[in-house]
Amino acid sequence: MLRSCAARLNSLRGLRGLRGGFVGSSFPLKNIIHENHSLPKPCWSKGMRLLFDQMMKKCEDGSWICFPSHTYGSTKMSQDFSAFIRDYFPTASKAINKEKLSQARLFCGSFEDGLGFEYAMFYNDAEERIVCLFEGGPYLQGVPGFLHGGAIATMVDQTVGMSAILAGGVVMTANLNINFKRPVPLCSVVVINSQLEKIEGRKIFTSCNIKSVDEKTLFTEATGLFIKLEPEKNI
Amino acid sequence: MLRSCAARLNSLRGLRGLRGGFVGSSFPLKNIIHENHSLPKPCWSKGMRLLFDQMMKKCEDGSWICFPSHTYGSTKMSQDFSAFIRDYFPTASKAINKEKLSQARLFCGSFEDGLGFEYAMFYNDAEERIVCLFEGGPYLQGVPGFLHGGAIATMVDQTVGMSAILAGGVVMTANLNINFKRPVPLCSVVVINSQLEKIEGRKIFTSCNIKSVDEKTLFTEATGLFIKLEPEKNI
Repeated sequence: MLRSCAARLNSLRGLRGLRGGFVGSSFPLKNIIHENHSLPKPCWSKGMRLLFDQMMKKCEDGSWICFPSHTYGSTKMSQDFSAFIRDYFPTASKAINKEKLSQARLFCGSFEDGLGFEYAMFYNDAEERIVCLFEGGPYLQGVPGFLHGGAIATMVDQTVGMSAILAGGVVMTANLNINFKRPVPLCSVVVINSQLEKIEGRKIFTSCNIKSVDEKTLFTEATGLFIKLEPEKNI
Repeated sequence: MLRSCAARLNSLRGLRGLRGGFVGSSFPLKNIIHENHSLPKPCWSKGMRLLFDQMMKKCEDGSWICFPSHTYGSTKMSQDFSAFIRDYFPTASKAINKEKLSQARLFCGSFEDGLGFEYAMFYNDAEERIVCLFEGGPYLQGVPGFLHGGAIATMVDQTVGMSAILAGGVVMTANLNINFKRPVPLCSVVVINSQLEKIEGRKIFTSCNIKSVDEKTLFTEATGLFIKLEPEKNI
């Protein structure tokens, strides 16, 4: 779907090699990490914190960067992004319930700490790859003891969407094709690997898989197609 | 994903023509509707209530039935269903964090009234069709003013999953293929139409679309493939 990436894009100004970015100016990589006050979170399990620390080690040589996953908000950038989208979809925009907009929260961040989507994303620019550590909380249950398929789809969209944003700036999800191989245990830690596959014109092709921490269990495979939005072009 | 359908299946005992149902005994259709205390909900918009009333009118001749959408719980049936799933996936089941299970809530019902997934499902047995009225609350936001793609995917899974359950009993989502055509405005009411397409052995093929109430705007199209789980058969 449309990517609520304003704050993320804002935080990614400093990414080296950012293609088609939505923002112009940049600031040093260390500032991105320094701004990441929200991670790691006290509610995380030991396993999640351990993995996070391992990934942060990889960030030390600059090959990987960690970016904030819970810092979405109604920033100036967010408003600009929203206006951009509304230009594309004027009819849909008219149907927005403005009265309720003041209550709005980003879906992935709308649960209290530890109950919903707990995750941290890391990006490797040279490999065009994202690793997302994900611990799905108890409010994401499908069948008792396992994550709901919609919660998994949400994290797929969130992760491959980030790959697309890094490649294309302002993008919209056009297609998600998700193969559910095995159920994901509730409150377990899994690793989502997202890869930029190719870019053809305004189409951005991505893929991802979700595996256990030891990589022995493949839970999910998916592909995502995104369309780059450009001013004054209809989709 | 795995369908947390225990309570739903329990409520659907009386469905005429239920194929491969998980439960044996039956009770009259009127009891299913009578048990549906939770709908309509005070938090719903006027538009949602109006549509609900229109669909309830269609239920009067028995061609459609309404079934509860927010009555999932840890019933005996739910426990049985869970045990059934764990037999299929013993490794994944071992990874369930039992300590946190007591906090678990079904994903679609884990928000306070009016903030998350508000929906009502209706089933037409003769047409093998489900109509789901859906009002996505302010906590499901993606880009400002619009629903997150993951929230849409969740309702797709929930609705085509119900079609599959009605056709096959205990099922697991194997694939969701979702085309996002247009963004869905936050807090608007949309209609999800789900259709049973075909059954080939243990494979159940479904499709759905999401449209505006006036049917003029197509927001989403999707297909869902489900696998019927049978005791002592591996998938």
